[in-house]
Amino acid sequence: MVDLVRFGVSIQKQLLDKFDKYIRKQNYRNRSEAIRDLIRTSLVEEEWSQDQDIAGGIVYVYNHHQRQLVNKILQVQHDFHNLIISSQHVHLDHHNCLEIVSVKGRANHVGNLYHRLKSMKGIKHIDIVKSTTGKI
Amino acid sequence: MVDLVRFGVSIQKQLLDKFDKYIRKQNYRNRSEAIRDLIRTSLVEEEWSQDQDIAGGIVYVYNHHQRQLVNKILQVQHDFHNLIISSQHVHLDHHNCLEIVSVKGRANHVGNLYHRLKSMKGIKHIDIVKSTTGKI
Amino acid sequence: MVDLVRFGVSIQKQLLDKFDKYIRKQNYRNRSEAIRDLIRTSLVEEEWSQDQDIAGGIVYVYNHHQRQLVNKILQVQHDFHNLIISSQHVHLDHHNCLEIVSVKGRANHVGNLYHRLKSMKGIKHIDIVKSTTGKI
Amino acid sequence: MVDLVRFGVSIQKQLLDKFDKYIRKQNYRNRSEAIRDLIRTSLVEEEWSQDQDIAGGIVYVYNHHQRQLVNKILQVQHDFHNLIISSQHVHLDHHNCLEIVSVKGRANHVGNLYHRLKSMKGIKHIDIVKSTTGKI
Repeated sequence: MVDLVRFGVSIQKQLLDKFDKYIRKQNYRNRSEAIRDLIRTSLVEEEWSQDQDIAGGIVYVYNHHQRQLVNKILQVQHDFHNLIISSQHVHLDHHNCLEIVSVKGRANHVGNLYHRLKSMKGIKHIDIVKSTTGKI
Repeated sequence: MVDLVRFGVSIQKQLLDKFDKYIRKQNYRNRSEAIRDLIRTSLVEEEWSQDQDIAGGIVYVYNHHQRQLVNKILQVQHDFHNLIISSQHVHLDHHNCLEIVSVKGRANHVGNLYHRLKSMKGIKHIDIVKSTTGKI
Repeated sequence: MVDLVRFGVSIQKQLLDKFDKYIRKQNYRNRSEAIRDLIRTSLVEEEWSQDQDIAGGIVYVYNHHQRQLVNKILQVQHDFHNLIISSQHVHLDHHNCLEIVSVKGRANHVGNLYHRLKSMKGIKHIDIVKSTTGKI
Repeated sequence: MVDLVRFGVSIQKQLLDKFDKYIRKQNYRNRSEAIRDLIRTSLVEEEWSQDQDIAGGIVYVYNHHQRQLVNKILQVQHDFHNLIISSQHVHLDHHNCLEIVSVKGRANHVGNLYHRLKSMKGIKHIDIVKSTTGKI
């Protein structure tokens, strides 16, 4: 179904030996699989730095007793409803919530959403996973 | 409700001026808020490096047509059911899925889950957000 | 000689307790010292992202037997002589050299130098330390 | 002189097309060169995480008027003289110095040196480049 092609790589024997050890350690089945992974990782970085269409997740932890915070977060999420696909909410304990928002859209827009959330009082920690729409 | 205390920081005037500019730009309301954020970020890094109890999210993209992949992912998730709280699934297109797993547990155990998933053939990209249980 | 000022930080007791533990572990003498370090680190990141005046080091490893590479590196260094302060050369073994170039100037210009070197055939590894002119 | 070998990589046509675009943009001459670079980068990360023999540079900025700091830095450098190859000193302005130390040795030992310097009062910023002895 997938259109596979093949190309050759010339490489120093010593470097290939070390790479083969690395491959076994990382549980790759063969060189092609490992090389494809390295290629994809570099392309995903490129997608984000070039403001292309990307997908990812924003993860944050907050205290839901913080005054008005839940409403403000919801407000921001609605402002960015075109980017946000869905969200997942975890009750960590009596006070703390972990929320994960899955996003898809232009890299810079997702960056804007991230910074809006990051600057909100009561969000204790926030970080982002920069992933891909899979078109690689 | 929260037990607030206060401490003093001595600092070069020039450094404080630059920090005040930074604070305004990042939309913090006051210095305490910005300082607490810096403190929390360094503590979260510490939690992960010291194998303490953490929370976070693992985000990966895969082609669900890849033979047996869906079953294998489910199998791994069940092997780590103590760590995994819930998962969120997004259909990116006809082939590609974005899945986000929220996790809570010991940092090293979550690292093991991450590496198990990372080495699976058909997972195009994977990354992790290292967050906190909020006990900071 | 240095103009010291003082400001107060209000913080949750629990968070401060954890920070105090962190401070001891990192061998800081007191809270002010640790806070100033956190502040400086965030300001240095800001300097680089805002294309301000910065200082730093570019470190690369290459095989000096690679045809013409030494001359090409020198050529690039001269093209950027306004940025480069000095360089340090280490003979790692019969083939390999480690070279460290100290730089000072606008962040984007230093980025250009880095990318010019990075794309040269024969440079095995290259990375950059993003530091500061100390005006913080 | 160098022992070149060749191996084949099978890859989706769509992924290879994107990689070829990336290669041109990064000024690589051919796929082999780009692949070797990706391989080397992953191996260098491995060398550091596995506490193997590595090389690199530690870059720090400090105020040389800070009492006793210069002597203390020298003392630490002598404690680690087996790791330190040479150092490079830049007078940034009347107060500030940028110093770059080139290092070679076991990754963990270099990490120890880095942390000793990092905890010294008066060092305004410090970071490390994790490079390689070139045996890749």
